[in-house]
Amino acid sequence: MSRNHNLSAGDMVSERALTINGARLWNNLMEMAAIGATEKGGNSRLALSAEDSAGRKKFIQDCQSLGMTVTSDAVGNLFCRYQGTAPELDPVVMGSHLDTQPKGGRFDGVYGVLAALEVIRTLKEAGLQPKHSIEIAVWTNEEGARFTPAMMGSAVFTGIMSLSDALARQDIDGISVAASLEKEGWAGNSPAGRQFNAYFEAHIEQGPVLENHHRVIGVVTGGQAIRWLDITVNGNSAHAGTTPMPDRNDALLAVAEMVGGLEDTAMAFAPQGMMTIGELTISSPSRNTIPGEVTFSLDLRHPDDEVLAQFDQACRQRLAVIAARRGVQLLVKDHWLSAATPFDEQCVELVSQAVNTLGYTYQRMISGAGHDAIHIAKHCPTTMIFIPCAGGISHNEAESIEPEHAEQGANVLLNAVVARANT
Amino acid sequence: MSRNHNLSAGDMVSERALTINGARLWNNLMEMAAIGATEKGGNSRLALSAEDSAGRKKFIQDCQSLGMTVTSDAVGNLFCRYQGTAPELDPVVMGSHLDTQPKGGRFDGVYGVLAALEVIRTLKEAGLQPKHSIEIAVWTNEEGARFTPAMMGSAVFTGIMSLSDALARQDIDGISVAASLEKEGWAGNSPAGRQFNAYFEAHIEQGPVLENHHRVIGVVTGGQAIRWLDITVNGNSAHAGTTPMPDRNDALLAVAEMVGGLEDTAMAFAPQGMMTIGELTISSPSRNTIPGEVTFSLDLRHPDDEVLAQFDQACRQRLAVIAARRGVQLLVKDHWLSAATPFDEQCVELVSQAVNTLGYTYQRMISGAGHDAIHIAKHCPTTMIFIPCAGGISHNEAESIEPEHAEQGANVLLNAVVARANT
Repeated sequence: MSRNHNLSAGDMVSERALTINGARLWNNLMEMAAIGATEKGGNSRLALSAEDSAGRKKFIQDCQSLGMTVTSDAVGNLFCRYQGTAPELDPVVMGSHLDTQPKGGRFDGVYGVLAALEVIRTLKEAGLQPKHSIEIAVWTNEEGARFTPAMMGSAVFTGIMSLSDALARQDIDGISVAASLEKEGWAGNSPAGRQFNAYFEAHIEQGPVLENHHRVIGVVTGGQAIRWLDITVNGNSAHAGTTPMPDRNDALLAVAEMVGGLEDTAMAFAPQGMMTIGELTISSPSRNTIPGEVTFSLDLRHPDDEVLAQFDQACRQRLAVIAARRGVQLLVKDHWLSAATPFDEQCVELVSQAVNTLGYTYQRMISGAGHDAIHIAKHCPTTMIFIPCAGGISHNEAESIEPEHAEQGANVLLNAVVARANT
Repeated sequence: MSRNHNLSAGDMVSERALTINGARLWNNLMEMAAIGATEKGGNSRLALSAEDSAGRKKFIQDCQSLGMTVTSDAVGNLFCRYQGTAPELDPVVMGSHLDTQPKGGRFDGVYGVLAALEVIRTLKEAGLQPKHSIEIAVWTNEEGARFTPAMMGSAVFTGIMSLSDALARQDIDGISVAASLEKEGWAGNSPAGRQFNAYFEAHIEQGPVLENHHRVIGVVTGGQAIRWLDITVNGNSAHAGTTPMPDRNDALLAVAEMVGGLEDTAMAFAPQGMMTIGELTISSPSRNTIPGEVTFSLDLRHPDDEVLAQFDQACRQRLAVIAARRGVQLLVKDHWLSAATPFDEQCVELVSQAVNTLGYTYQRMISGAGHDAIHIAKHCPTTMIFIPCAGGISHNEAESIEPEHAEQGANVLLNAVVARANT
């Protein structure tokens, strides 16, 4: 498993693990991080901005220098192709995104694209040509920071969002996706919904699990199910100075107990079950008025649809019990539901085999955040590979990873993709 | 204690209880309620508006028909004087306000003014002339709904607020107090800070205590002490989908437990101790982001300054214990402190004696809300008399009182004021 293994041109890929050049990958990551660099060491390459275009051009040059062909589709998704020995077969695709948050980090998205590029470099250097062609996809506007929604490019590619809807979306200055594509010159003729043999996306975890458990690779088995609820609690508003505590019907005191009850319930479903109250608002708040109405959001997640339904029920029951005892009115509304996205078992197995062959520590886990892979999983066999990021911090200039983990994740990607491309 | 007692002119006030004409008082309340009446049965007479002026003019006509003299001071406070036998002595003053909230009730403030008018009517009808002159004060802009702050007129009278500051305050349309006084013609030459022998203010309770305890009269012993704190709790913001529950440092979950702890602490100081969290804000709230920072206000009240200090300490300790266990940062800042306002013992005793002589049920209590009497208490011996209001509801068109309670409160005012005016 030396980095300097030397396979002769034309060798078929063997059971032996291939490895990428970690120093070259890290150097490439740092080159990309110089484009749209921010003062505090992060990156700002908003989707379809001049900075995003500069990043894409640098990437395309690197691909072309490897002899890859570059196409794009109508929403600006890029596809860089490394020809296989049976070019009529559907390609095996790796990918992620190059756009960032306005004050984003150097690795979110970028890592998956440049790890894929390093995979191709390694194959090219070793003179290896798998049976299926291998492509690198760079999805447009994954972040959703300039144009909503996030994961726009992969949504259009898979038909989850219409092209016309996407093109009409505008940024805060009223500039549309269509106008930005036109200006930056990224729209092309590659057909949306083209068949892929499989899709593999390497990404930083954006959570603390791998770091806390001292594991290098996340073998990602799917995207979790999500339920968003809107909850309104009504008590009685009254004067803070004239209403003794026992005579109050304070909506906020009831909500505080409810939040505690929801935390207890979530701990019973942890660590896979998660509960977040990200928004909480007192209606007509005033420092010297007892809150009469409080609304809050509830975000419930679990990898298993059925368990999430049980979790949801347990939360509703807990809320109802507290509301009844407190004598407040409770209204629970469904806001949005998203079913779990199981990844393809064979693709997951290829990642597991690569990890085992390479001898890395790993953890099977779900993807908590949204990724292009969640959309692509509805289109073709898909999975993801996670590597740790420091403190689980992402969408932040302080985003940080270890060069060794970057190398190890790319090695897993290489071996899984080559195995798939040769079957 | 017949309502139709018949005292000959010039009789000195005896130990026997005098009584007002309850039907006449109620009729007068309903006449005033017709001025600035709202659709839902409330009143809208914003300070120094045309409606407020119409109410004042009606009141002045009634006073003048009783032979009272009317003056006003530079901020428009009205003083209607019923001459005593020793007019050189400082007057005993009754009063309250005629302005209302934009959708206010028919009794807040008005009751105290018209009960005072009924007291004078009763004296005039009985031909009684106490030693001290008796005045009715109508304070300008008690509500603070059009111009801030509330209790402006009594604040200027007592020097708590400068006249120039008050005159410069503007309503939402940029119209100043000075311009409104000029337009409506209420500014006069009566000197601010003129000595009063004593001040008695009858008012609806604006809380539920008398109603819940089935008592008719609140013997008010003072205004409570208030402490306002600003609290900030910092945990770590993180992605709602990637951070397992045990790895979170959720500021809102910590705050929910803190609110519960504060409620427990307040119950230990109840019913006199009160705790209200009227404002609570998640910084940069997002439905799928774990709250990293939450701020909230804390309003603590108790009639006793020392006990409030203990209450405050107990709250801070409870917060610190929870913050330490949760691993969140806690910042507690003083926002505002207001010491307790004890009312004059002799005035309170006169009210108690009147209640006993009249045979009414009563409860000693503090004033939870702000009133002109809280300012005037710093100027002269002062107390208040409360009567019940339905459900403790005030600052609301649904504000409601029983005619019998209105009569009984005015009887207490009459007897207490006459006793004071004859000493």
